[in-house]
Amino acid sequence: MNLLKERILSDGRAINADVLKVDSFINHQVDTVLMEAVAEDFARHFKDKGITKIVTIESSGIAPALLTAHELGVPLVIFKKKASRVLNGSLLQTEVTSFTTNSTYELTASPKFLKSDDHVLIIDDFLANGEAVTGAIRLLRMAHATVAGIGILIEKSFQPGRKKLEEAGFEVYSLARIKEMSTGHIEFID
Amino acid sequence: MNLLKERILSDGRAINADVLKVDSFINHQVDTVLMEAVAEDFARHFKDKGITKIVTIESSGIAPALLTAHELGVPLVIFKKKASRVLNGSLLQTEVTSFTTNSTYELTASPKFLKSDDHVLIIDDFLANGEAVTGAIRLLRMAHATVAGIGILIEKSFQPGRKKLEEAGFEVYSLARIKEMSTGHIEFID
Repeated sequence: MNLLKERILSDGRAINADVLKVDSFINHQVDTVLMEAVAEDFARHFKDKGITKIVTIESSGIAPALLTAHELGVPLVIFKKKASRVLNGSLLQTEVTSFTTNSTYELTASPKFLKSDDHVLIIDDFLANGEAVTGAIRLLRMAHATVAGIGILIEKSFQPGRKKLEEAGFEVYSLARIKEMSTGHIEFID
Repeated sequence: MNLLKERILSDGRAINADVLKVDSFINHQVDTVLMEAVAEDFARHFKDKGITKIVTIESSGIAPALLTAHELGVPLVIFKKKASRVLNGSLLQTEVTSFTTNSTYELTASPKFLKSDDHVLIIDDFLANGEAVTGAIRLLRMAHATVAGIGILIEKSFQPGRKKLEEAGFEVYSLARIKEMSTGHIEFID
């Protein structure tokens, strides 16, 4: 998606070979016009997949996921990051370790909002090692829901997330695929 | 706002005199059509206040705040909850203790996205004791920005948040004001 790639080049900051800051337009300050364009792109791409629900992981994916849900006319379900396991057993949970932030959390969702006939589109801002998305897929499997696709704003294609997800049979649709980065330099695939 | 009050009565669950669950349409599963109506109401109410930015606190306020920002054509800035103080001094931070969840966090924002000529509308899903909103106001004061108003989806009017904010000179516009609750019972003001 050219609009997003151009914005990453103008306002993103490659801190080093691994860290890209997009806090001025995606995950701290949010440009709603850009997010609307992102959502329209996702909705167009996935419109024939019978999507019944959008799922995202709090909190940076909420903005694009909400607008995509609005475009497709389906509810959004926000998976929560809890510090520890909830003991009452009424929630779906799976442990996720983020290599990027070196932190571990219990990805948590209520089974009330995930049905076996749901076709779910997972939306997130970044795909790197794929730990958050594969955690979301584990929760969706516990609910016997179908993963209809994965929509990503920025993919670090030099990390193994896409490969792992594709090998597991999932479609990954990323709007900006970064081939490589270094301080002040960003190169896209294509 | 009748649409929200009716939805609270039909799908909200008053667990006891203090706890209202709205996880099926606001803060776990999100009804995007309802959130759009909420955003249109906020935008209509605050349209002549010269709003330049919307601020919310992650993560339940992001959905209505994003759509309100989109309606008003201004950026959204998401204040983050950090577990501990960041030591490099480049961020605005203030400690917030939530009576509702009995937790303490460092509310955090980058000064880059808050200017002294900003007129900020703060949007959040709940107002109870007002700890999160008063924390947001402290950060906005550090940035010398002007608080132009506070928009709340659900106000627990039997708790002191509104009174504290009004006494400090702020306008609080709440779409649903709860006078009292008990298990299975919700009564609104008006």
